[in-house]
Amino acid sequence: MPPADQYVATTEFYVRYAETDAQGIVHHASYIVYMEEGRLNYARSLGLDYAEFERSGFFITVIGVQARYRAPSHYGDLIRVTCWVEELKSRMVTFGYEITNAKDNTEYTTGVTEHICLNRAGKPVPWPDEWKAKLDR
Amino acid sequence: MPPADQYVATTEFYVRYAETDAQGIVHHASYIVYMEEGRLNYARSLGLDYAEFERSGFFITVIGVQARYRAPSHYGDLIRVTCWVEELKSRMVTFGYEITNAKDNTEYTTGVTEHICLNRAGKPVPWPDEWKAKLDR
Amino acid sequence: MPPADQYVATTEFYVRYAETDAQGIVHHASYIVYMEEGRLNYARSLGLDYAEFERSGFFITVIGVQARYRAPSHYGDLIRVTCWVEELKSRMVTFGYEITNAKDNTEYTTGVTEHICLNRAGKPVPWPDEWKAKLDR
Amino acid sequence: MPPADQYVATTEFYVRYAETDAQGIVHHASYIVYMEEGRLNYARSLGLDYAEFERSGFFITVIGVQARYRAPSHYGDLIRVTCWVEELKSRMVTFGYEITNAKDNTEYTTGVTEHICLNRAGKPVPWPDEWKAKLDR
Repeated sequence: MPPADQYVATTEFYVRYAETDAQGIVHHASYIVYMEEGRLNYARSLGLDYAEFERSGFFITVIGVQARYRAPSHYGDLIRVTCWVEELKSRMVTFGYEITNAKDNTEYTTGVTEHICLNRAGKPVPWPDEWKAKLDR
Repeated sequence: MPPADQYVATTEFYVRYAETDAQGIVHHASYIVYMEEGRLNYARSLGLDYAEFERSGFFITVIGVQARYRAPSHYGDLIRVTCWVEELKSRMVTFGYEITNAKDNTEYTTGVTEHICLNRAGKPVPWPDEWKAKLDR
Repeated sequence: MPPADQYVATTEFYVRYAETDAQGIVHHASYIVYMEEGRLNYARSLGLDYAEFERSGFFITVIGVQARYRAPSHYGDLIRVTCWVEELKSRMVTFGYEITNAKDNTEYTTGVTEHICLNRAGKPVPWPDEWKAKLDR
Repeated sequence: MPPADQYVATTEFYVRYAETDAQGIVHHASYIVYMEEGRLNYARSLGLDYAEFERSGFFITVIGVQARYRAPSHYGDLIRVTCWVEELKSRMVTFGYEITNAKDNTEYTTGVTEHICLNRAGKPVPWPDEWKAKLDR
């Protein structure tokens, strides 16, 4: 569940047909992409521009993913991704997610992803100041 | 690591260009699809036909995914997915995965996925006998 | 170019990171998914619910795709898909698309897709009345 | 149809479950990825290493795609992509494709893709000699 005392960002979009599979439901790998969209929109909502971040020579890479699937979603559903910072360390951040139906609040998926920051040489580095300040909430 | 005393199936294929992202590496969601391909090939290697399974009115659904990313892979790499049954219960199966470079054995990703079996009504049911017998190794 | 005298629907969304490839640009297959999203949103904008359409026993299938790529788009770009009906026949519809940057109007991709309507048996059938009426503009 | 008097490369793989959609068939955008895999395997079969090509500062970009869908394929089908050079110009190459069922020869999709070669600055350039020699057959 999203923490009550912390900044959360919500992102909404419709399920795309291409994201469904032959079971008639959204394919489980699609939610990993939904989490990414929620996470990058979290940054966007704080004025952090990830495209600019990469141009400046830093990269956020994924080192871990966990997802728990609780109910299937279908083409036509309006998805809401709620995203927050679960834990921030000097060189690692963990994001938490709750993916629900934006209309009836069905809980589809929950999960976390873990990330580190790399420089152009692919070496782990501490978070640049602007990102550290904004993720620390 | 794949268990030494148990049946494992290996599946090999080249990274597809579409699976890479702007960091120049395979996108983290692509490995979730690689796991699925490894898992369904595990079944295929035992003579279990998942397409036929669905036609007969059963569906295997994903209820959990965990992945740990250890090194990036790139376009041109030959991927090897090693897959095994980590745990089998009457209504749940956990598959384990190790995704490596088939040529130099670099370990890219490890993970597990959890599954249950549903009937046409979407209700969890025990594994049909043929699947239970073959997964139980 | 979108026709001046006809109904057009526009759909806007940000490029998702997963849609980029190792060239640092949006992968060409992603635009085919963008067209689909633009097309289904075209229907949605007219009050046509495609999910309900399938539940009622009809399916729109793709029989042809053409795309011309004019400029690359990148992560961070706000995409606008403009979609219209290029031609409507009793059993076929052709949609036209222009995919641009919603902020600076760079034209990324243009294209058309051709579709027929199938019933549950997979047999081509004329458009149901509601869809025919709304597509005919 | 593949030309009788020319080099063709064939690539075979099983449909992945993630490539299907809620109609129970392979999603039409997946065939665009199949074409890419057939095209890059065409190069691989001639000893051309596209990953190395990019490292040397050249990029092949897609400027046009056409696909005609003739029959649906499903999870479990063994796909065969037959690929050949339809036309070679100093700065453009057109590949032709036929995508069939490798077991019963059902023709799923045919199409062409057009490509140009770019240097690191994104400027169109003639094909490097090795590629020109090998594509010219």
